[in-house]
Amino acid sequence: MEQFKSRVKNIEELKDYKQPIAFGIANVDSYKNKSLQASFPVVNYKENYGSFAIFVSALLENNQDMDFSGSEFVANIDINFINTAIKYFEPFMNESYGDKHKNIQVIKALLENIDTGNFKFVAIFEDNAVQSVESAYLKLHLLSLKKVKPREINLDGVFGALPNVAWSGGKPYSLDYLRENEIVLKMSGNYPHIDYVDKFPRYLSHIIPEDNTRILESSKVRFGAYVSAGTTVMPGASYINFNAGTLGVAMVEGRISSSAIVGNGTDLGGGSSILGVLSGTDGNPISVGENCLLGVNSVCGIPLGDGCIIDAGISVLAGSKMYISNADLGKINEINNNALEEKTLFKGVELSGLNGLHFRIDSQSGQMVAKRSTREIKLNKSLH
Amino acid sequence: MEQFKSRVKNIEELKDYKQPIAFGIANVDSYKNKSLQASFPVVNYKENYGSFAIFVSALLENNQDMDFSGSEFVANIDINFINTAIKYFEPFMNESYGDKHKNIQVIKALLENIDTGNFKFVAIFEDNAVQSVESAYLKLHLLSLKKVKPREINLDGVFGALPNVAWSGGKPYSLDYLRENEIVLKMSGNYPHIDYVDKFPRYLSHIIPEDNTRILESSKVRFGAYVSAGTTVMPGASYINFNAGTLGVAMVEGRISSSAIVGNGTDLGGGSSILGVLSGTDGNPISVGENCLLGVNSVCGIPLGDGCIIDAGISVLAGSKMYISNADLGKINEINNNALEEKTLFKGVELSGLNGLHFRIDSQSGQMVAKRSTREIKLNKSLH
Amino acid sequence: MEQFKSRVKNIEELKDYKQPIAFGIANVDSYKNKSLQASFPVVNYKENYGSFAIFVSALLENNQDMDFSGSEFVANIDINFINTAIKYFEPFMNESYGDKHKNIQVIKALLENIDTGNFKFVAIFEDNAVQSVESAYLKLHLLSLKKVKPREINLDGVFGALPNVAWSGGKPYSLDYLRENEIVLKMSGNYPHIDYVDKFPRYLSHIIPEDNTRILESSKVRFGAYVSAGTTVMPGASYINFNAGTLGVAMVEGRISSSAIVGNGTDLGGGSSILGVLSGTDGNPISVGENCLLGVNSVCGIPLGDGCIIDAGISVLAGSKMYISNADLGKINEINNNALEEKTLFKGVELSGLNGLHFRIDSQSGQMVAKRSTREIKLNKSLH
Repeated sequence: MEQFKSRVKNIEELKDYKQPIAFGIANVDSYKNKSLQASFPVVNYKENYGSFAIFVSALLENNQDMDFSGSEFVANIDINFINTAIKYFEPFMNESYGDKHKNIQVIKALLENIDTGNFKFVAIFEDNAVQSVESAYLKLHLLSLKKVKPREINLDGVFGALPNVAWSGGKPYSLDYLRENEIVLKMSGNYPHIDYVDKFPRYLSHIIPEDNTRILESSKVRFGAYVSAGTTVMPGASYINFNAGTLGVAMVEGRISSSAIVGNGTDLGGGSSILGVLSGTDGNPISVGENCLLGVNSVCGIPLGDGCIIDAGISVLAGSKMYISNADLGKINEINNNALEEKTLFKGVELSGLNGLHFRIDSQSGQMVAKRSTREIKLNKSLH
Repeated sequence: MEQFKSRVKNIEELKDYKQPIAFGIANVDSYKNKSLQASFPVVNYKENYGSFAIFVSALLENNQDMDFSGSEFVANIDINFINTAIKYFEPFMNESYGDKHKNIQVIKALLENIDTGNFKFVAIFEDNAVQSVESAYLKLHLLSLKKVKPREINLDGVFGALPNVAWSGGKPYSLDYLRENEIVLKMSGNYPHIDYVDKFPRYLSHIIPEDNTRILESSKVRFGAYVSAGTTVMPGASYINFNAGTLGVAMVEGRISSSAIVGNGTDLGGGSSILGVLSGTDGNPISVGENCLLGVNSVCGIPLGDGCIIDAGISVLAGSKMYISNADLGKINEINNNALEEKTLFKGVELSGLNGLHFRIDSQSGQMVAKRSTREIKLNKSLH
Repeated sequence: MEQFKSRVKNIEELKDYKQPIAFGIANVDSYKNKSLQASFPVVNYKENYGSFAIFVSALLENNQDMDFSGSEFVANIDINFINTAIKYFEPFMNESYGDKHKNIQVIKALLENIDTGNFKFVAIFEDNAVQSVESAYLKLHLLSLKKVKPREINLDGVFGALPNVAWSGGKPYSLDYLRENEIVLKMSGNYPHIDYVDKFPRYLSHIIPEDNTRILESSKVRFGAYVSAGTTVMPGASYINFNAGTLGVAMVEGRISSSAIVGNGTDLGGGSSILGVLSGTDGNPISVGENCLLGVNSVCGIPLGDGCIIDAGISVLAGSKMYISNADLGKINEINNNALEEKTLFKGVELSGLNGLHFRIDSQSGQMVAKRSTREIKLNKSLH
């Protein structure tokens, strides 16, 4: 144990040493030396610096370079690395099971599988633009494991870093591989069943959700989504993109576009849409507060506070004009620190982030109005 | 044969004997003795009481308890049960194939597979709240095999009875199993490809549809849905929940929420929604009649009679106000037994269940109107 | 080589010889001699007539009938056919790899797999109604390989020609097979995991998309769809039916119904719908031009020119009435060859195919208006 501690200390005193933001060991799928997917059984985020030091030590011991100068670092792992790590982790070996010493459990599993997989050590030192498949997957893990919230981590460059691949049963196939072998695969009846073609895998390919989370179709949640316990994602017209998600219990029958965040207790009706920054809004990400209801086929193009309702089929966009009666204005101001000036016509963007609004269209005049909501939204408990 | 008859008679004269509402033998997937899924190759609903008596007899013969006192009963099946049942079914053994004596065919298949599966005898005596995974699956089979219609069977407690599990290729994985083995599964490349996480499986995992039924994506129909011959379910924004469905030929490009029922010849346009009782309506289930059209992205929040149309993009809710001209009121009353009083403004709920309505919005005034429909809805025959 | 050329010439001089529109060799899945699916590793469209002649020659040499009198022809392939073809193709044998001589590569792969598959030679001579599973698949390949555009090939009879089957991992199961074996399959735990039930397979079961094409869920694109490079199909509420598709880079979060065509640079927002001829329009197929935006949950029921916008949630149908101000009318006429007469109210159908329109609803008056669009639609480059 003393040896362990001094070894960690020695590493941390190296001239160029930097603490990582995140690190982990990945099982990497590749084709012709190009990484296609990186699976991390365990991800460390601002934690377990001792294990990190041991991994660095095992790399150096086996004459592998360790480079702290970039924003991220990726190294191949071989049997020597594993044997060294096992030796250094000796004091904890017998107590690494269940929830304890998960990084050591990874090393043990590595020992069993080193001949059949392609394993890499991955570390991120600065939250800069993504530069590799491995660091992209590490960052997406941070989001989907809820170690960071949507918009809290830098995903610039992720589309460039990730190759577009064909996925079959969770395994990525290079499109080139399929092209080069199409004739033989099809004539032999061995052409793989392709589930989808995308740069990102699906959330459920990497993440085990909480007991009371339901995702009724894996395509509906992209890897990198943030899905809180008690969220139900129905299979009709729903979607949760990467870098977007739910902060609590939520019913998701609509679309949460990239960068959009949905609060606890909120119900997104079937086919409703929250616009995202990748295509839709002018670049301002949208948050929807707690206990809101987006009605069936409604559209939310502005941030909403808590307790808001958009009626079914209504589109609330930044430029939509909405009438607010004097009476309602008073009630809305009462719970929103008098945020609104006294007038009767408001653009959607002026109502951004306010609590307790109910957006409606008068079905006889066609007028879009915002009122003080009088209805409390409660999710059906048996569904979450 | 005489022996068979007298054996059945003896069982039926047992002091506590009760005829079952439904019974069957299930292949049960489980983890750590907790049932996860029950597959019934044959389900009996108010029928085949002789076979039921024989199964009871085989249980008793092998010193297994048989309890008629509860609303449902589940027993494990072993090789002794099978051998006894085969002996008792002797008179029918040679003629049990094709559509004949399906319960005996089940026993024969049991004999071949008893060592590799986990089989249970399941019976329901009273239509009370669901108390087990096995009875939940039996009831969901009754719905999806169209032995009972949606809303005709008691599904209270079904969310509590069914565990939330991860599904891979039709097989349920306990979330705990995945957590306990995540590191080894991921490092060995054997982490299962998860299709979805839900309490319910999918309709197509258990049900073989009629020849002219098409379900273009299995996630779109939950097990427990009622799907009539000639129904086409498209993969865009559609969904049929459990305890909901179609009573005849139908085009389903929209959502049929739990408890909602759609009549023969009806077309649910892409992205249309029929609200359900689990989240949406105030608890009143919605039926849509025959030969109706719900336009693309429309919302139906009230029951509709036959021959109704909701135009594309329009939301008809219980509280929506609709204008009806005097001329249209006369025509509507003519085919609806003068159901409407003479006025011009109606709430959606007042128009519940009427035939021949056409819901529109005047595109110049924004006024929502209901008219007497003049257009006959006919489905494209090549699609059903 | 001289022999090869004279052999081709001899065949082409046969009395009844006809040049095929398309031909290919298929790996056919079947059940009880009924074809269920035909996989073509290579498809020839108005090309490679020499290879066609050699295939015909190999059939005749082995005493198989070759019938040029119908609009299509299907023949079984055996080892004699293959050996003969290999002999005739001798001069090209060594240079058939990569992109060269793909039909010969097929013959080589056939030689390896003749014992384990069911192979057929398929030719189409006249573009008449589809008469077989094999010619249906050949025509659908022509569309999805972008050898013909949507609406350019005769697909009459395709629903009748294709059987409705259950698909599992890309393999078709006859529904009868499942029925006949249900009990044994379920009791042994071998019941196949059914992905969908349909007459058509999915696009990704047969087609390798371009590098910058993404299809995030295979169910969202039917085989026979035309998907151009740079198209992204999101998994929310999207769909591309057969005989429909995109002519260039496009974001598809909405539905492209059968017969509908979408131009380069166009963005179909989440849940938007373009009506199709199978159910929806009156039979006139809809084209949407270049650089258009169909807003979230909008409906497009008329053809659009280039640079058009339909705002979120708005339905533009043939019968919708739209107001155009005099000022906007002038600007619209300016870029559309004065197509519109001077008035202020237009039906949707009157605006068919015009460029530069922006369809909106005034959120205070409920009036639907068409204006001259002032916004340029640009897709996010990192998504395509």
